[in-house]
Amino acid sequence: MINHATLSTTQSTTVDSLDACDDDYDGVIVNPQCLPTSANAFAAILRSSLSYWKLKGKKGIWLKILEEQAELVPIALKEGFRYHHADPGYVMLTHWIPEEPCMLPSTATHQIGVGGFVINDNREVLVVKEKKCPLRCSGIWKLPTGFINESEEIFCGAVREVKEETGIDTTFLEVLAFRHAHRVTFEKSDLFFICMLKPLTSEITIDEREIAAAKWMPLDEFLAQPYHQGDSMSKNVADICVSSYENKYRGFTALQMMSKLDDRLSYLYCGDLCKWKKGLPET
Amino acid sequence: MINHATLSTTQSTTVDSLDACDDDYDGVIVNPQCLPTSANAFAAILRSSLSYWKLKGKKGIWLKILEEQAELVPIALKEGFRYHHADPGYVMLTHWIPEEPCMLPSTATHQIGVGGFVINDNREVLVVKEKKCPLRCSGIWKLPTGFINESEEIFCGAVREVKEETGIDTTFLEVLAFRHAHRVTFEKSDLFFICMLKPLTSEITIDEREIAAAKWMPLDEFLAQPYHQGDSMSKNVADICVSSYENKYRGFTALQMMSKLDDRLSYLYCGDLCKWKKGLPET
Repeated sequence: MINHATLSTTQSTTVDSLDACDDDYDGVIVNPQCLPTSANAFAAILRSSLSYWKLKGKKGIWLKILEEQAELVPIALKEGFRYHHADPGYVMLTHWIPEEPCMLPSTATHQIGVGGFVINDNREVLVVKEKKCPLRCSGIWKLPTGFINESEEIFCGAVREVKEETGIDTTFLEVLAFRHAHRVTFEKSDLFFICMLKPLTSEITIDEREIAAAKWMPLDEFLAQPYHQGDSMSKNVADICVSSYENKYRGFTALQMMSKLDDRLSYLYCGDLCKWKKGLPET
Repeated sequence: MINHATLSTTQSTTVDSLDACDDDYDGVIVNPQCLPTSANAFAAILRSSLSYWKLKGKKGIWLKILEEQAELVPIALKEGFRYHHADPGYVMLTHWIPEEPCMLPSTATHQIGVGGFVINDNREVLVVKEKKCPLRCSGIWKLPTGFINESEEIFCGAVREVKEETGIDTTFLEVLAFRHAHRVTFEKSDLFFICMLKPLTSEITIDEREIAAAKWMPLDEFLAQPYHQGDSMSKNVADICVSSYENKYRGFTALQMMSKLDDRLSYLYCGDLCKWKKGLPET
């Protein structure tokens, strides 16, 4: 679909422009279903659309191009668009029209990892050996970990990863701590959340694609592994997990609530205000 | 540069393949500086490279194509590559060779926001009015916020944003809480960290590009704003900030430490183990 837009009420000039809707910040989002398939037609209408949007005072232009129309990407780049982000299936390009510095939100910079500390009533920790890992990690028994899915909650991701890797059902208690690491996958950063999970079942069934072995390991044996002793990060994380298990440490719980400011229902991860107000047990 | 690789010691067949180095997971990373400029030459060598990598048992192929060579993107897509991620300047494509499910890490899914709760000895909070915000937020006095830069620490981002928007120097104390929201910029999610910052200066100089006004506002006046009363998220965040100021709440501090498991110096955000061990004051 192509819009035949009238530029102003005093002029009767009509221009063709790409079908687009307004965003919240004086910009427009082009409808990816309505791009011409011919390269020449796309070049022509993109140019006239940019003139039109400029006259209308539009600022940021969002242009999503699906994989099957990838031939249009070089044309958009020639017209001043830049890559913003991509995912399997499409690339998103942006063009900032004003002379002033670009105020568009930056692309996603982080992937979110989760790990589950699952300890049972016999002081045994749920541990796995991964099939594929860099040499320096091979052979160690570690907590089940993984990445959260698109739009998944952190605590849901931790429960799901533990279930997938080990077959154990759990319920989320707290985020105990998180680690922030940079340049993990090329230039992208990584936030890794360690979650305290309570086991609901005990029988292990491993995911044989990812996991070589899984078991319940006595806590002392888990902590005595050489990598915990020689590695500050592992040692501190293990200390936090044990302190939490012994009720000497509190992390953040997850509370779902509404914000009218952006009309979203989302989770706030925070300390338990009620417990803080009551004070915490002396140890 | 093109590699002339011999396929095996028993055959003398030599194939051309793209210059590439191994990644940590039985895959290869193609050197983006060495792609042929001609589309036909690229198609031919990409096809022979894929055959070669397949014979060598390689799994994931990473192919970065710079903006100036965007004409090569449709060719790579036709050979089975998919978009992985993009940033201004390039797009990264991947191809998973084995029949088994793709084990490559997913693309970045999150942007990281930070906000600073800065309160002075007169019980006044540092607040700003933003120039550009959706209608429902217009006119409200809010905490200074922003996004962290590539590879920037969360606490550094909070200190920097407060400095940029208001001119106030601060030092980081704690992450008080964080919010996880989905589908914020198209399909991408957002983690927003609320940081307790201690002011080191008092004189305000605003960034006129982003900020309409900034001031020190008495805490009670800040809390009495209607949006805090009618909005669960704002109300809870404000409660946490005040509780922390009154020493009735503790968040996470940031501790830098080494991990030998991935050879990285990074920050762990966690509760203060020493304070927990000593117990906390009754209130």
